[in-house]
Amino acid sequence: MIANTPKPPYYAVIFSSIRTSVDNGYEETAERMVELAKDQPGFLGVEYARNEVGITVSYWKDLESIKNWKNNVEHSIARKKGRKEWYSSFRLRIAKVEKDYGM
Amino acid sequence: MIANTPKPPYYAVIFSSIRTSVDNGYEETAERMVELAKDQPGFLGVEYARNEVGITVSYWKDLESIKNWKNNVEHSIARKKGRKEWYSSFRLRIAKVEKDYGM
Repeated sequence: MIANTPKPPYYAVIFSSIRTSVDNGYEETAERMVELAKDQPGFLGVEYARNEVGITVSYWKDLESIKNWKNNVEHSIARKKGRKEWYSSFRLRIAKVEKDYGM
Repeated sequence: MIANTPKPPYYAVIFSSIRTSVDNGYEETAERMVELAKDQPGFLGVEYARNEVGITVSYWKDLESIKNWKNNVEHSIARKKGRKEWYSSFRLRIAKVEKDYGM
């Protein structure tokens, strides 16, 4: 679903990745990370799609919320596994949403 | 592919959408828009994936480049068709990328 974010400004973390063929718990961890992120202070929503490239955009109240989420222990372990096993390449971008509109 | 963007700051346009079941030239127009965007001044790259939700992130040098692209005539016609036929809902967010890293 499209995230129902509040009025800007807020932050977006755009995580773009190419998967390896290694499974080894990927789906379960991905789902767990979404559930865990939802419980974090400052979490505003998340959107996800994957074809050749996977794009996960999570939305956050401010940079502090993003930093807290980055320091979450379970999330840090998952990221390490991601670098080692699940992703052949990725890029993470932190961006301040200045404007939005929709239908 | 993951867009090979330069060092921040630059801008991201995050377009999240839910499709209707109407085809009517959608794929051709989507492809044409990517080709056309690539020709615009300030275009830095694009990433795209769709499952339940579609996410297109295009990257731009600055707000002026985004505004020019928005005012492109062919793009404006496509957006009108998008609102009327192809999307049941969408959200467009303009965000300033402050930081990025990758592997």
